[in-house]
Amino acid sequence: MSTTVGPGASSVPTLDEVAREAGVSRSTASRAINGGERVSPSAQAAVDDAVARLGFVPNRAARSLVTRRTGSVALVLPEPDERVLNDPFLTATLRGVSSALGSSDLQLILIMARPGEKEGRIARYLSSGHVDGVIVASHHREDGLEDALRTSSLPSVFVGRPFSPDGLTFIDMDNAGGARLAVRRMVERGCRRIATVTGPDDMTSGVDRLTGWRAAMAEAGLADDAVETGDFTLLGGAAAMERLLDEHPDIDGVFAASDMMAAGALRVLRERGRSVPDDVAVIGFDDLDMAADPAIALTTIHNDVSELVRLACDALLTTIEVGSATTPPPLPARLVSRSSG
Amino acid sequence: MSTTVGPGASSVPTLDEVAREAGVSRSTASRAINGGERVSPSAQAAVDDAVARLGFVPNRAARSLVTRRTGSVALVLPEPDERVLNDPFLTATLRGVSSALGSSDLQLILIMARPGEKEGRIARYLSSGHVDGVIVASHHREDGLEDALRTSSLPSVFVGRPFSPDGLTFIDMDNAGGARLAVRRMVERGCRRIATVTGPDDMTSGVDRLTGWRAAMAEAGLADDAVETGDFTLLGGAAAMERLLDEHPDIDGVFAASDMMAAGALRVLRERGRSVPDDVAVIGFDDLDMAADPAIALTTIHNDVSELVRLACDALLTTIEVGSATTPPPLPARLVSRSSG
Repeated sequence: MSTTVGPGASSVPTLDEVAREAGVSRSTASRAINGGERVSPSAQAAVDDAVARLGFVPNRAARSLVTRRTGSVALVLPEPDERVLNDPFLTATLRGVSSALGSSDLQLILIMARPGEKEGRIARYLSSGHVDGVIVASHHREDGLEDALRTSSLPSVFVGRPFSPDGLTFIDMDNAGGARLAVRRMVERGCRRIATVTGPDDMTSGVDRLTGWRAAMAEAGLADDAVETGDFTLLGGAAAMERLLDEHPDIDGVFAASDMMAAGALRVLRERGRSVPDDVAVIGFDDLDMAADPAIALTTIHNDVSELVRLACDALLTTIEVGSATTPPPLPARLVSRSSG
Repeated sequence: MSTTVGPGASSVPTLDEVAREAGVSRSTASRAINGGERVSPSAQAAVDDAVARLGFVPNRAARSLVTRRTGSVALVLPEPDERVLNDPFLTATLRGVSSALGSSDLQLILIMARPGEKEGRIARYLSSGHVDGVIVASHHREDGLEDALRTSSLPSVFVGRPFSPDGLTFIDMDNAGGARLAVRRMVERGCRRIATVTGPDDMTSGVDRLTGWRAAMAEAGLADDAVETGDFTLLGGAAAMERLLDEHPDIDGVFAASDMMAAGALRVLRERGRSVPDDVAVIGFDDLDMAADPAIALTTIHNDVSELVRLACDALLTTIEVGSATTPPPLPARLVSRSSG
C-alpha cells in the first residue's frame, strides 16, 4: 500500500506517481484530474500526459470523498413529459442512457420540461451540485442549457450539435449528409419537384437537415421553394403536407426530416389520392421501427440513436474521470431503401 | 416592511409574529416551521397553532436561503425504464405529478430503476440532500425505500400503501374493497367458480386486491383455490390465464388485478374458444383508457390515478412547508360496468 513506489513497481499507478511523472504537486495533479480548476494549461498538459503514459485509472470511490461526488448523472430532455413519453426517438434516448450506464455505479435521474417551464430552472438545478454530469438531448436554441453548461464546470455532453458548440462536447450524426442522400435518391428516380417538411428551426437537427436539402437541391439545379415547417410530430407532418399540396400541387417528392412527420405526410397523401411513390416519393429520417412496418415501408435515413447515446455516455464518463473529452466526427448517414421513395 | 407590527396590522403575517404569538424565539419558530428538528413537542404545538391562527404563509424563496432547499422534488418509480415507458398506470403517474407541480416553482426529477439496480442506490441518492421531497409509486417490499424514508428527515409521500406504513404518509385507494365489488358483481350474474389473476405479492396493491378477493369469496361461500400470480403485465396475465384454464377448466369468472392482465386473459379466452362473458366473465382493475375500447369493453374497478397523485403532491408540499401531513382515508372503489363481466 506504499504510495512511494516508482513507475512499474506497482500494477496500479497512484496519484503520487502521476504527480511525480508530471513534475507537479499531488494537489495540482488531483485538481487537474478532477476537472482542471485552478490548474495552469502547462500543468494540465503535463498531468494529462502522465495519466496517459502511466495508464492511471482514478478510483472514483476514493475521489468522491474529496470531490463530493453525488454518484449520479442527469439526462435532460427539455420537452414536456407528454412529448417524451410519445416520441420514439426520445424514449430510445432514455433506454440508451439507462443501458449505457448499466455497468457503472451511477444513479440516473431524468429531467424533463414541465408545461410552462420557467426559463433557467433546469440549468439552475444542474449547476447546484446535485449531479456529477449531464447528458442533454432534444435541446432548443432558447432553452439556456448551452450557455449554462459552457460556463459551468459540470461535465456535460450533448446528443446533437449545440447551436454554439465552442467549449461543449457533443455527439452527432451527419444530418446534412443524410438529407443530401434523400434528395439524390429522389433525383435518381426522376423526381424534379422535391419538397421538404422541416424540423423546428430552434433545433440543430432541424436546421442541418434543411441545410442538406437546400445544398442537394442546388447541386441538382432544382428550385428549393417548396418548404413547410413541422415540429417532428405526426400531426405537424400531416399539417405541413396539407400546406405543401395546397401551395405546390405539382410536387413529386417529399423529404420529411423525421419518420414521424413522414408518417403524417403519407396519411395526407393517401387521403388526397396521391399514390406513393409513383405520384409522390416520400423519404423520412430516423429509421424508427415503424418505418419497417410493411404498411408504411418508409425509405429513410438511418439514425443510430443507441450508438449516439453510447458514445455520449462514454464521453461523459471520460469527462467525469479526467476532466475533458473530445467531440468525435459525426456518424455517417446511410439511406435505408424501402418502397416509399 | 416593519417586522414588529402586531397581528392584524399587516395582511401578510411574518415569522416574527408567529414567534411572538407562539411565545417562542424566532429561530425556534423557524425550525418548527421547517420540519421540527430540535424543537420540543410543546413548542412545535404552539407554533403550529400560531401558524394556523395567523394564516402564516411561508415564503419559500426566502426560506430556501436558510434551509438550503434545492427547489426540486423526485418522483421515484423503482421499475426498469422499459416498464415505466410501457405501463399506462406509471406513465399516468408521471403525467399527474408533472401536472400537479405545474404551478409550483419546483423542479421535478424522475428516478427509475436500472437493469441490475443495486440495492440502496436510489435511497442513498435521496438521502444525500439533492431533493426537497420525494413521491414514491410502484414500490416493492424489498426495494429498501420504506425503511430509508422512514428514518430520513426528507419529506416523502407514497402513492399506494407501504408494507409498514408507520411513520410514513401515503395516498391509496380501497384496493380490497374494489376486489370485493368485482367478486360480488360476478356472483350476482351467477358465477360460482371465480378465479383470480393476482398482482405481484411484493406490492401492496397486489396483496390487498387478493385479500379483498378472498374475503368476498368467503362471504359468498365459494372456494378460493383458483389463484394464479401475474405481474401486472399483459403477457403475465395471459400466462396466468393459460394456467388457470389448464388447472381449473370449470371456471366461469376471472377477477384480474389489473386491466393489462385482464387484456391478456381475454386474449387467451378468445384463443381457447371461451365466450366472454357467457362462458367466463372477466373483470379487471384500473379502468385504463383501453378498458373503454369497444373491442375490449372491460368491466373494471376505477382507479383514479390523477386524483391519487394530486393528493400525494398536495401532501408532499404540505410536508415540505410545515413538516408533516396526514394520511387521508383511502379513496373509495367504484365498479365501471361494461360488457365483459
